[in-house]
Amino acid sequence: MEAISPIKKLWGMVRPVSHLQHRIRGYSPYQQWNRGIGVASSVLKQTGDLAVEPHLPPLNVQKQRGKAEFYEAIGRICQLRQKYLENRTVFVDGREMVPLLKALGARDEDFATLQAVNNVLIDDPTLPFRKSRNGRFCFDWNTKSLRRLEFQPFALSLEEDFKRHDSNTIRRFDEVDNDLQRNTVFQALLVFKGVMCHGITVNERPKLNYRSNQWVCTLFALRTVTTPEMLGEPALEGVHTDGVDHTMTTYLRSTNMSSNSAVTFLHDIKEKTGIRLNETSPELIQARAQHRNFLDTLLIVDNERKHSISPVYAVDASREATRDMLIFFTRKPVVGDHISSDIDSLIPHREKQLEFPIMSLSDGYELESAE
Amino acid sequence: MEAISPIKKLWGMVRPVSHLQHRIRGYSPYQQWNRGIGVASSVLKQTGDLAVEPHLPPLNVQKQRGKAEFYEAIGRICQLRQKYLENRTVFVDGREMVPLLKALGARDEDFATLQAVNNVLIDDPTLPFRKSRNGRFCFDWNTKSLRRLEFQPFALSLEEDFKRHDSNTIRRFDEVDNDLQRNTVFQALLVFKGVMCHGITVNERPKLNYRSNQWVCTLFALRTVTTPEMLGEPALEGVHTDGVDHTMTTYLRSTNMSSNSAVTFLHDIKEKTGIRLNETSPELIQARAQHRNFLDTLLIVDNERKHSISPVYAVDASREATRDMLIFFTRKPVVGDHISSDIDSLIPHREKQLEFPIMSLSDGYELESAE
Amino acid sequence: MEAISPIKKLWGMVRPVSHLQHRIRGYSPYQQWNRGIGVASSVLKQTGDLAVEPHLPPLNVQKQRGKAEFYEAIGRICQLRQKYLENRTVFVDGREMVPLLKALGARDEDFATLQAVNNVLIDDPTLPFRKSRNGRFCFDWNTKSLRRLEFQPFALSLEEDFKRHDSNTIRRFDEVDNDLQRNTVFQALLVFKGVMCHGITVNERPKLNYRSNQWVCTLFALRTVTTPEMLGEPALEGVHTDGVDHTMTTYLRSTNMSSNSAVTFLHDIKEKTGIRLNETSPELIQARAQHRNFLDTLLIVDNERKHSISPVYAVDASREATRDMLIFFTRKPVVGDHISSDIDSLIPHREKQLEFPIMSLSDGYELESAE
Amino acid sequence: MEAISPIKKLWGMVRPVSHLQHRIRGYSPYQQWNRGIGVASSVLKQTGDLAVEPHLPPLNVQKQRGKAEFYEAIGRICQLRQKYLENRTVFVDGREMVPLLKALGARDEDFATLQAVNNVLIDDPTLPFRKSRNGRFCFDWNTKSLRRLEFQPFALSLEEDFKRHDSNTIRRFDEVDNDLQRNTVFQALLVFKGVMCHGITVNERPKLNYRSNQWVCTLFALRTVTTPEMLGEPALEGVHTDGVDHTMTTYLRSTNMSSNSAVTFLHDIKEKTGIRLNETSPELIQARAQHRNFLDTLLIVDNERKHSISPVYAVDASREATRDMLIFFTRKPVVGDHISSDIDSLIPHREKQLEFPIMSLSDGYELESAE
Repeated sequence: MEAISPIKKLWGMVRPVSHLQHRIRGYSPYQQWNRGIGVASSVLKQTGDLAVEPHLPPLNVQKQRGKAEFYEAIGRICQLRQKYLENRTVFVDGREMVPLLKALGARDEDFATLQAVNNVLIDDPTLPFRKSRNGRFCFDWNTKSLRRLEFQPFALSLEEDFKRHDSNTIRRFDEVDNDLQRNTVFQALLVFKGVMCHGITVNERPKLNYRSNQWVCTLFALRTVTTPEMLGEPALEGVHTDGVDHTMTTYLRSTNMSSNSAVTFLHDIKEKTGIRLNETSPELIQARAQHRNFLDTLLIVDNERKHSISPVYAVDASREATRDMLIFFTRKPVVGDHISSDIDSLIPHREKQLEFPIMSLSDGYELESAE
Repeated sequence: MEAISPIKKLWGMVRPVSHLQHRIRGYSPYQQWNRGIGVASSVLKQTGDLAVEPHLPPLNVQKQRGKAEFYEAIGRICQLRQKYLENRTVFVDGREMVPLLKALGARDEDFATLQAVNNVLIDDPTLPFRKSRNGRFCFDWNTKSLRRLEFQPFALSLEEDFKRHDSNTIRRFDEVDNDLQRNTVFQALLVFKGVMCHGITVNERPKLNYRSNQWVCTLFALRTVTTPEMLGEPALEGVHTDGVDHTMTTYLRSTNMSSNSAVTFLHDIKEKTGIRLNETSPELIQARAQHRNFLDTLLIVDNERKHSISPVYAVDASREATRDMLIFFTRKPVVGDHISSDIDSLIPHREKQLEFPIMSLSDGYELESAE
Repeated sequence: MEAISPIKKLWGMVRPVSHLQHRIRGYSPYQQWNRGIGVASSVLKQTGDLAVEPHLPPLNVQKQRGKAEFYEAIGRICQLRQKYLENRTVFVDGREMVPLLKALGARDEDFATLQAVNNVLIDDPTLPFRKSRNGRFCFDWNTKSLRRLEFQPFALSLEEDFKRHDSNTIRRFDEVDNDLQRNTVFQALLVFKGVMCHGITVNERPKLNYRSNQWVCTLFALRTVTTPEMLGEPALEGVHTDGVDHTMTTYLRSTNMSSNSAVTFLHDIKEKTGIRLNETSPELIQARAQHRNFLDTLLIVDNERKHSISPVYAVDASREATRDMLIFFTRKPVVGDHISSDIDSLIPHREKQLEFPIMSLSDGYELESAE
Repeated sequence: MEAISPIKKLWGMVRPVSHLQHRIRGYSPYQQWNRGIGVASSVLKQTGDLAVEPHLPPLNVQKQRGKAEFYEAIGRICQLRQKYLENRTVFVDGREMVPLLKALGARDEDFATLQAVNNVLIDDPTLPFRKSRNGRFCFDWNTKSLRRLEFQPFALSLEEDFKRHDSNTIRRFDEVDNDLQRNTVFQALLVFKGVMCHGITVNERPKLNYRSNQWVCTLFALRTVTTPEMLGEPALEGVHTDGVDHTMTTYLRSTNMSSNSAVTFLHDIKEKTGIRLNETSPELIQARAQHRNFLDTLLIVDNERKHSISPVYAVDASREATRDMLIFFTRKPVVGDHISSDIDSLIPHREKQLEFPIMSLSDGYELESAE
């Protein structure tokens, strides 16, 4: 079990963002030396870890390039990406995700492990019916790699179409650890998201740097819990967006959850933020999706569609019901006076180092563009 | 019709290579400025041509990277390449080549044109039953592009396991022109050969530079003709190799040719060079292939297998029979006192400029290898 | 152009079904001799036609059984059918339908023809903003063939969840002719529907004979027209079902139609029949689909989902906007006092004869079931 | 372990066929009651066995008909069959066979078991360097099933292009048992052979009944053994045919076998029977194939190509080398005075009962042909 890092102890309580800005600013710079560390140095630094806990190398999609299955999978991902491009959302059945993730390099034995990974979650800082952890990653298209970023607290604002009691509040989640980030199925999900989203032009959000070649991905591992006393709400905030460019949600598993639970509705961006599903306009509903199988995955162009999610209901109302998800937020880095401008560091994580190659469908276009 | 270039006039007759070496040496250097010209400048220089004869851009495999069919084709090519790797030869049915070449970017309308392209061939310099043209191309893995190279004469030696009356003789073929080299099916065949052969380790020939990242490809467009007076022999030389690393032979069409004609046999490298098929040892026969359909394509690791080809027989013996082929020789550039050391220029062709992107299955490995 | 048959002249006006029952009963029997005519006799009878208007044979899916593409298509249809089985609805992109229909035997030249086939529609009997024709077909799983059935009028009742001013009214549509029914793309759509729906267990409607091995398919070719004076409503009836087991809707084309037009919403069967979309409960919305490309096809288990369709809006409001669709209703034959019990003949059409083979995924199960 | 059946005791020694004809004739008829037993009765009779040794049901290809993988596999088999049709031989890599056999219904756990199944072989009746067993099966296209046939001795004659010391001799092999015949990978190999060969027109052999809708398949499980004292010859008979319509050979495994061992050469039917490879004419060689991977499978139209196989050589010459194969001979039943006319019973096996469904690509053509 991961000890709470001294850095995170800075963030003892949830409090409004304005109070904390100077402290956050002060915290980042002394780690600037660490910026831009590549894979090679990561490997070297992991030798300390290796002595204690040897582990397999991370997923390397480049090593799949000699295999027919890899190209067949990329061909299928092309088709899914085309649907995403046209419809601004796509739902992929988990049974279809399995061969795609394997073809990207995920190891067989990591599938069962991933499904159980949310057992280590802890109480959410602001929601009583939720257990959570998060982690930050950088899709770096300069180095064509994904790397773990250092801890930062988290905030979403009303300005970003997120209306909840804790909007505009700095929240501090405990971090996801190696059990998740070293799982090659998880890593393949990140590679998949990279291929799907790279090159998709989206309606731009204010105060994000669309010239950057790096994306910030905040990953949430979440368990929504319904008990006889408390209804678990995957989206207590009602109709909302996540303040990002691309939201991807992947189902792990559930227990005692009824079949009408946790339906995701997509609404036209004109729908009113913060209202409940039964208050929405039917004609503004754009799509409906329900995660039912392990690895069922939904992608949404987050600034072009709002979404809402219905509650988790128990089959046996006398017992607890749970629903485990991975939520991948991805957006360009913030600029200016964005609510997250002081909590958007691109500095690699020092303790939980991870870096592995990603790819895009435009790999190899360089020759052409250089001409 | 292409006028004979002044450079080629230097090569008025077939004569032994030793007589010519000083002249060849003197001829190359003054064109060094031209070396390494990229696509952009080629395009600029073609503007003169464009005024006279507008033409479509060459094949750009990079533009296929957003299409599912492209990846499905690459997946299939992976399987063919694996067979080639294991067996040191592979035969691909032309009916299977068609969708692969289309997926690499070949245009529909260029298929029929390619099949008829050998109608413009002229008399072979040394073989009375053959019409021919050739052209030289560079697979340049530094620029990841294929470009047309300037004219050079041609020679094959006994040392290279080629035993014929014209072994060790410098031969001068007329050049293939834009009707062939601008055909996108032809260009796709070159891309295909690049993907198939890149990264395959072969038994090295002496006096070739295996450290070079460039390959020289000599392309022969050949028509073998059998008449009542003369038997057409696709390989008069009997059992032989072509003095290269990879030989690829692609069938275009035939007329009045009997079904038992032009069978290619592969022989163990221990088989004796120069003997006729009926003198060979059956137990040294490694494979048998016969081109029958448009685009049937055979690949051979040329320094690990010898091969022979049976004659072209006429169905109606009173009439001419013909067989049209494209032969792609590919090897590393020569070094030292190789017979071709003075006729192996890597200088781009000035009149018949062509350059377009190629690819390999290891594209994108750069991140990994840079670590 | 088809002359109006004398039989259809019996149905001069739209009138309540009760008035007509004795007449309908009297009309059918004298054609009993014609029942069960197979393909062989159809072909013989067409010799008359052939003298006047020679035509190609209908689609024969059996002839595809030696082709790899056929099995690849059936493999893909398996996956679509599994989605249909699980979700009780499936939407197939027209661009994906094209290769599937070709693999079932549709001829290339029939695609463009089908897209324009609704140009021959005439005024709808009850809806001023619609042009229409219909035709009746039998999926006969005993003979494993589809055949055209004789003309019958048409009715839908409130009891069948169809609430409109003309509910419970006998409507007489003009018939679709050979230009549609001999189109092999149309025929392949019927084969596709057969494969998709055969073997799917559905919630049974009252007064249908679920023991029958024959299905009645009523095909509507419809053009919805919006003019400056009149809004075209693909489903004026609001939330409804079509009184059948499986509804399939296929898009042909539109003119001057805005992108927010003609969206299909699927509602939980608990939703109230006859209400407008903006009156529906968002939480009862099950899916949303919009036909945009030629051959976009939606399948619905009609007795398990209600549906509604939004209007056709014009881009240029001063001009007419049109939307052309094919609607395939399929249900078991009626029994007892069903509103259609006297207009549900299974007698083949005498003038517009057509019969061709269909298939199901359980073809060949016979050995097993005989054990 | 299987006790030797009393029937087989009739065949105590290898002796010329002429001596035995009356006895064989006398032996068959009293089992006529058993002829034509279908699957249903087989199942009933196995209840006795079930009490002692419960076993899983045999492969049922019909149960695969709802699965996408099944159709994808059949699509691929179509392509292989087309190659077989054109070239009269086809070699399928075992790594490609695995997914095909799984898609036909083979169970994962049966692959490893099959590879080791030849461990139970016993000494061959006539060849000192071979261990063997055989079994007879009927491809019955009337019942669309494959069933085990009763024991019969075996003979091949010079007339059938089989020239060896034991030509024209009746040989008695011990029988293959349930460990082989209940293996679903083995069963899938039989289904595969059925699909590949059904509908292929071949040059007819004399004295076979080409009007019959049943094929006799004699299966040999063979281990060729090379020792320091004895060279193992997979085909001691040199150039030969197997006296059947279709020969299929499938590799299981080998030990201590050198890479140049056991190469199969196909020769033009004009090649002389009985000669050694080094005596053959190179120009009559039609193909060369070498089994290297588990399930590598070669199919030959046996009456249109002769074949020979080179010996099994040891890597370590001081130790035994082995090569395990399954050989599937298939031909129409004999008629008249064929050497096997008294040993070609179609009576099901009473002790080792087995029957399971087979399929052909023309399944479902019945509608068409019945018209």
